[in-house]
Amino acid sequence: MSTDTISAAYYRGDKTFVVETARTEAPKAGEVAVRIAYCGICGTDMHVYHGNMDARVGHNRIIGHEMSGTVEAVGEGVSNVVPGQKVVVRPLNHCGDCPACNAGHFHICHKLKFLGLDTDGAMQEVWNVPAHTLHKLPDDIRMDHAALIEPVAVACHDVRLSDLQKGEDVLVIGGGPIGVLVAMVARDAGGKVVISEVNPHRLAIMEKLGFDTVNPVEQDLPAEINARTGNKGADVVFEVSGTQPGVDAMTACAATRARIVMVAIHAKKPQIDLFQFFWRELKLIGVRVYEPEDYEKAIAIIVSGGVDADTVITDVSPLSAIQGAFESLDSSPTALKSLIKVGADA
Amino acid sequence: MSTDTISAAYYRGDKTFVVETARTEAPKAGEVAVRIAYCGICGTDMHVYHGNMDARVGHNRIIGHEMSGTVEAVGEGVSNVVPGQKVVVRPLNHCGDCPACNAGHFHICHKLKFLGLDTDGAMQEVWNVPAHTLHKLPDDIRMDHAALIEPVAVACHDVRLSDLQKGEDVLVIGGGPIGVLVAMVARDAGGKVVISEVNPHRLAIMEKLGFDTVNPVEQDLPAEINARTGNKGADVVFEVSGTQPGVDAMTACAATRARIVMVAIHAKKPQIDLFQFFWRELKLIGVRVYEPEDYEKAIAIIVSGGVDADTVITDVSPLSAIQGAFESLDSSPTALKSLIKVGADA
Repeated sequence: MSTDTISAAYYRGDKTFVVETARTEAPKAGEVAVRIAYCGICGTDMHVYHGNMDARVGHNRIIGHEMSGTVEAVGEGVSNVVPGQKVVVRPLNHCGDCPACNAGHFHICHKLKFLGLDTDGAMQEVWNVPAHTLHKLPDDIRMDHAALIEPVAVACHDVRLSDLQKGEDVLVIGGGPIGVLVAMVARDAGGKVVISEVNPHRLAIMEKLGFDTVNPVEQDLPAEINARTGNKGADVVFEVSGTQPGVDAMTACAATRARIVMVAIHAKKPQIDLFQFFWRELKLIGVRVYEPEDYEKAIAIIVSGGVDADTVITDVSPLSAIQGAFESLDSSPTALKSLIKVGADA
Repeated sequence: MSTDTISAAYYRGDKTFVVETARTEAPKAGEVAVRIAYCGICGTDMHVYHGNMDARVGHNRIIGHEMSGTVEAVGEGVSNVVPGQKVVVRPLNHCGDCPACNAGHFHICHKLKFLGLDTDGAMQEVWNVPAHTLHKLPDDIRMDHAALIEPVAVACHDVRLSDLQKGEDVLVIGGGPIGVLVAMVARDAGGKVVISEVNPHRLAIMEKLGFDTVNPVEQDLPAEINARTGNKGADVVFEVSGTQPGVDAMTACAATRARIVMVAIHAKKPQIDLFQFFWRELKLIGVRVYEPEDYEKAIAIIVSGGVDADTVITDVSPLSAIQGAFESLDSSPTALKSLIKVGADA
């Protein structure tokens, strides 16, 4: 270690983060110490900020998982990386012994630990993680851009499970931070993408990014989709809004045999037009986080510029200003992705 | 034709069928005249009987589509069958020029005509149909059993689209006429099938057929499924009940990455636990009628005895008694499939 004290941001409940000095610990066997460059603020982190996840994270938790960093030290038995290697962490630790793990679906392990929620996370200068969670980055990658790899991997997982084919018509319902990444990855895969979004500020950003958009409060969304697709409807629909109108639109805009990917997390139980599932043989696909290949794809897309990282990153604050970063992200109608620059010299 | 007058049963509205003498017409070009042996009463036919489909069928309609018969005469240009050939009709006529047809999904054509609802059907001694709707039967098939081929083809379509693998755990929610056929076809495909059903009479029939059953009003269905699957849940769930409790059970009993097939037609919009779709990466698969390969599979299953036809067929009435057949099916808690023996000498 270059130092044995680091700065770390602790969530202390009641919309409050406190940055304190902490001592580093040497990585244990099978662990790697990663010096964090940047860490993005996820929608889940905003849920923590709002106190919605206190039962899970407690009041003394270092959160954060959308990170980029460099290997600082490796514990006993670690052979996949060496110090100096740029990396991202796939923040999932599975049990290895549940029905999901036994079926090879480690990312939806019944006892999955999500690093940065169920354990301390990346809003600290040095983060110790299991070596198996690391993906290597090329040396010349921009580390601010690399902090987008985790949310881009979400989008890559969603697009992969949709089985999107080149030239297919795609509708993304909801143009927030995840929606826009899904739209970019779907476009990168050859989809003809339309984004439905109600926020005029976000619509302006989507249009700047070259996307065809519809505002469903001003326009008839199914009619607009039909007009763009020869009355066929969208072959692939991503429901990212988490709203009942979004759930209504997902069936109303779907082509025969369309695949609808449920990206949003619906805590309530919306009403779904099952008749349309019958009538058009629709498919609804549940998706959660990512698998290793989605990370590799996300790295490739960030490296190739398939995602316009500079437009997606709307704010960068130092770790010392984490409190203000959460406050302004919470009140901003235009922000997409806010990053925390964790490392002093990142 | 052996005669130019036939008996035909007309739906005249208000739960009333009238059997009258009609004149046969020679099959037009591309058509085949089929002498009907048996015709089953479908759930859809019961909806017609109850007056729920008057706007679609009118008050002078010959209904019926679950039939078996023998080619009587062929129209100009018909080369796929000759008189004397035993056949069943796949009662779907597509437009050939809509987005679904253009994509090859003829069975979910946007302007699909369902023979026996949108046109006259099989509750008459001779039925003229498009030649392309015919599937040939082996000479030694039992014609009463062959009248089950249409509903068995529904089950074959549902099981095929579920991608059921041998040895997988299957839950069928709802043990009515379609549920029991889905269960039989799933078992024939190697699934380990449990049926959930609330009707004790039907439960007794399912058990006689060798199925493991759960009565969800007396037992905790998810707990029972977990107990049978090592806490994994069902790999494939068929929701055939058409009820909100069935929709609740379909997610509660599903294994990680389970496929849930929506066999029931939900006219209302039930509430669905989308969180479980996220949490376990579930898939919901909409299904409608059948494709030609499902008919061929259904014929093979009927021939092989993979469906216990004699247990499924609980009643046979002559065409002259069609009114009483509908009335008693409507009031019976134990009936599965009622057949009408249409042909005098079938």
